[in-house]
Amino acid sequence: MQPFELSIAEAARQIEQRALSPVELVQSALDRIAEVEDRLGAFVVVTADEALEAARRAEQEIRDGGHRGPLHGIPVGIKDLYDVAGLPTTSSSAVRSGHVATEDSACVARLRDAGAVVVGKTHTHEFAYGVLTPTTRNPWDTGRVPGGSSGGSGAAVAGGECLMGMGTDTGGSIRIPASVCGTVGLKPTYGRVSRAGVTSLCWSLDHAGPLTRTVRDAALTLQAIAGFDARDPGSAKEPVPDFTAGLDAGVAGLVLGVPANYFFDDVDPEVEAAVREAIGVLEARGARLREVEIPYAEQMMAVEFGVLVPEASAYHQEMLRESGDLYTDDVRVFLEAGETVLATQYIKALRVRTLVQQAFRRAFEGIDALVCPTLPAAAAAVGQQTFTFPGGTEKAVIDAWVGHSAPGNVTGLPALSVPCGFTSAGLPIGLQVIGRPFDEAGVLRVGQAYESATDWGARRPPL
Amino acid sequence: MQPFELSIAEAARQIEQRALSPVELVQSALDRIAEVEDRLGAFVVVTADEALEAARRAEQEIRDGGHRGPLHGIPVGIKDLYDVAGLPTTSSSAVRSGHVATEDSACVARLRDAGAVVVGKTHTHEFAYGVLTPTTRNPWDTGRVPGGSSGGSGAAVAGGECLMGMGTDTGGSIRIPASVCGTVGLKPTYGRVSRAGVTSLCWSLDHAGPLTRTVRDAALTLQAIAGFDARDPGSAKEPVPDFTAGLDAGVAGLVLGVPANYFFDDVDPEVEAAVREAIGVLEARGARLREVEIPYAEQMMAVEFGVLVPEASAYHQEMLRESGDLYTDDVRVFLEAGETVLATQYIKALRVRTLVQQAFRRAFEGIDALVCPTLPAAAAAVGQQTFTFPGGTEKAVIDAWVGHSAPGNVTGLPALSVPCGFTSAGLPIGLQVIGRPFDEAGVLRVGQAYESATDWGARRPPL
Repeated sequence: MQPFELSIAEAARQIEQRALSPVELVQSALDRIAEVEDRLGAFVVVTADEALEAARRAEQEIRDGGHRGPLHGIPVGIKDLYDVAGLPTTSSSAVRSGHVATEDSACVARLRDAGAVVVGKTHTHEFAYGVLTPTTRNPWDTGRVPGGSSGGSGAAVAGGECLMGMGTDTGGSIRIPASVCGTVGLKPTYGRVSRAGVTSLCWSLDHAGPLTRTVRDAALTLQAIAGFDARDPGSAKEPVPDFTAGLDAGVAGLVLGVPANYFFDDVDPEVEAAVREAIGVLEARGARLREVEIPYAEQMMAVEFGVLVPEASAYHQEMLRESGDLYTDDVRVFLEAGETVLATQYIKALRVRTLVQQAFRRAFEGIDALVCPTLPAAAAAVGQQTFTFPGGTEKAVIDAWVGHSAPGNVTGLPALSVPCGFTSAGLPIGLQVIGRPFDEAGVLRVGQAYESATDWGARRPPL
Repeated sequence: MQPFELSIAEAARQIEQRALSPVELVQSALDRIAEVEDRLGAFVVVTADEALEAARRAEQEIRDGGHRGPLHGIPVGIKDLYDVAGLPTTSSSAVRSGHVATEDSACVARLRDAGAVVVGKTHTHEFAYGVLTPTTRNPWDTGRVPGGSSGGSGAAVAGGECLMGMGTDTGGSIRIPASVCGTVGLKPTYGRVSRAGVTSLCWSLDHAGPLTRTVRDAALTLQAIAGFDARDPGSAKEPVPDFTAGLDAGVAGLVLGVPANYFFDDVDPEVEAAVREAIGVLEARGARLREVEIPYAEQMMAVEFGVLVPEASAYHQEMLRESGDLYTDDVRVFLEAGETVLATQYIKALRVRTLVQQAFRRAFEGIDALVCPTLPAAAAAVGQQTFTFPGGTEKAVIDAWVGHSAPGNVTGLPALSVPCGFTSAGLPIGLQVIGRPFDEAGVLRVGQAYESATDWGARRPPL
């Protein structure tokens, strides 16, 4: 096994024992980038020189007895919505070319404090407004999309180009690429991780979080980036627990909710089979299952887009006036549509969101977490517009995918995607675990129990 | 002195000592209503029979040793936006005639638990959307308006018809009638008092609170109604302190901010003189004064109305479709205007509000409270449209009054109005005290220090 193939936890163990040097690890990742990047297109920019210099500093620090913890010397990719000092934050858009950040975003600053080494900035669907990431390909089948909007991070982590990639998730943009690229993806609770220095899509639904190869790696990353930040108006003053302390506690005695509606409607049969089997694995490990009615299922997408679309248009209004021709067509259409939304319509979406949040709080009273498919279908082919589900229902790719992700954004609840199998075409399938507010530890514990009972996460794409 | 003239604290003392019976007190208030109500028009409905029955129950309970505390047997008026079980909540509108409430609003339930006796429901500017309360007159001069939208409660408390009146405050609607009717008015911190069961004007700016004759009475009322309520999405999980414990601690050593801008621009000279003299009284009592720059002064009204107008229209949209002709003209025009606001405009108002809140938090770092005029001008004459200020600036009454109140709503900070003198025409003037988040105790302490140094509050209108 080459260094770039390691999990963060294993690499950290070897680095701490000085069996592996950060320089060796970062160089391995850079070599892997050189090997596969022309097929993946995951990176906007690769900062090889700066990364090697940072790796050398890490090596020296560790040699001097200053090992900072599990992220020290770990090569990571940063979605190009996050400010990284000295680099442009292009948001994968021509509109923003040349906007060089003067300081690190909160997450990047915390990751660097923890010793992580930035190897480059990963592609997003332009301004995170989509689920395809047209610039990037899926490592499992380069004729397929990597999902989005954090598609660059998904492809990079799955493809071995870095051990962790930061994503953002407004309507599924961490969990979608995680699911279709076969990585772990964690959308923390709204307010858990600061979004200061991250380009906004829709600030009341935006979340920052990691894509990793294992559940433990997601916990280790969250540990570094979680916590209150006054610069983010949505940031919550919640105490930050130890996210790995109870990670291996298993699911015996936990009550897991299984949706009776919504999440298993219009789902690809191979996906449904894999997810139901995964839920069976959790039950065999001692979890009790309880059927749960998903509230406000009919209103979910109306609320998601009713909030997202006008907030995105408000954010982009001046840029759209000045540089409208520089946007890609699909994003410009969304932004122009959002300008016609009336305040009363947006306000009603906010009001229904409050009702959804209250109803989910009640639905979670009898369960520890909800388990369901992350997405109703695996990776779409490049150029594919729709999925067709049993019974003949046809849905646009964005609607099908966002439909399964939106409950996590509308409610703000923490949600994890963990690999749980493959379609007959060899495409990854994801199990979604949704938890109570600020109970990322519980969500990760369920994910870890599943992951440790299977070996899906150990499979590597045939690059 | 007749019973209806007592403060809550004094009446409660006499009731506890059985020197005064709740029946005697309530009957005195009802007699006073019979005496002055045709000139004031403060009440939508007077519930004399129910009030006397409740007073008899209170009398019996107290005789049996069950004195509940300072509100037991106290006659109160409830603004007609609050649900009172068995009574219509008309919101002073023809649109709502016949809408009988099936249960008490949270505040009314808490007041009744504390033993308060509801003598009737007080008028509001229709749906709280205005500052005049056209149905009601000012006790100090019945040719003048009582302010609004809690004008009924202001007139009733000042006129001796009840000892406390509940109000709501979205753009000054507690403080405006308090100031122009010569009562104390307290707008607590956003989230401190539940609005469950109260007709909404603009839920992100609405506050519930009392109008009383003394600062201590405001503290006693707040004690009864404060606290978290899951039924109000804006309710805050903040501990409720003892609001009277430090009431008499004085202002020695406190730092009081005096605005360098905004609150003394375009102010009637008699009002300015009275307020500056009041600030001098506080300084003489040991407060240190510090000049404070009011941030975002130019944006304050744009944010207030940019948030209020579309939220009100969203709330009223269906009713306006069905019963538009039943609204009064001035309110219907506002509601129709709000329907044309774009979501992007509203969202920008929300974003600026966040900036204002952050800037005020910083401005309050060096001070304990801000002291300023509650309003730039005393009660307008009935029919008067504008005020003219020194230098010739003409402002609509609503703009002049809301301008001084809006900072409290936009920031959500607690704000108190205390009588601080009279114009040469004999009209009351108010001193406004604005405090830190959830520091109503601090605001009340400043108000009490001023009130106890003067006797403005003891004056009664010439009815």
